[in-house]
Amino acid sequence: MSNYQLSAQVLALLKDPQLLIPAIAQDVHTKEVLMLAYVNQEALAQMIATGAGTYWSRSRNEMWVKGATSGHTQKVISLSLDCDGDALLISVEQIGAACHTGSATCFHQPVQLG
Amino acid sequence: MSNYQLSAQVLALLKDPQLLIPAIAQDVHTKEVLMLAYVNQEALAQMIATGAGTYWSRSRNEMWVKGATSGHTQKVISLSLDCDGDALLISVEQIGAACHTGSATCFHQPVQLG
Repeated sequence: MSNYQLSAQVLALLKDPQLLIPAIAQDVHTKEVLMLAYVNQEALAQMIATGAGTYWSRSRNEMWVKGATSGHTQKVISLSLDCDGDALLISVEQIGAACHTGSATCFHQPVQLG
Repeated sequence: MSNYQLSAQVLALLKDPQLLIPAIAQDVHTKEVLMLAYVNQEALAQMIATGAGTYWSRSRNEMWVKGATSGHTQKVISLSLDCDGDALLISVEQIGAACHTGSATCFHQPVQLG
């Protein structure tokens, strides 16, 4: 059981509070898109309360705080939901590399057009 | 049946080619995150071939080309997959508003911290 709960105001913005929400972390300074992860209600509530990048792991089925192991933490600067309340944009101050591979961003595999 | 198919090279980058992939559209000029939608193999293959923002609608269960109705098209500048091949970043030249509400970006609902 989490110590944090979403306010009625935030809950009302969510399309379906029971679903996982894809969450995009963007560097507040460089504007680079760093990673995509997921939040559930619990992770979102903790992130709002603590200001630390906090997600839900679909593979481990548990909440995780970015950088808890690596030290590569995220300070949340602002949060925005999209128009239909089923995607989240997180503006962050990223310490160190966002990607577990050591890359600044997780989006480092180019796909050729054409 | 689509006219477009993914190359073996791109298929090999995907974590699970059968799953929908969340796709983040980012404005190439302003670096603003515009929207999050989804692609399946068919939509991704068409987007790679045509260079037009192309997605899969989960609610309508059909492929859609951004701007086909609104005129607010997206020219794809570059595509990148993330480290584990289950999220896509699309750098686009966005014509007009990305959001159906008329906002420049879909992420226009702030969530207060604290």
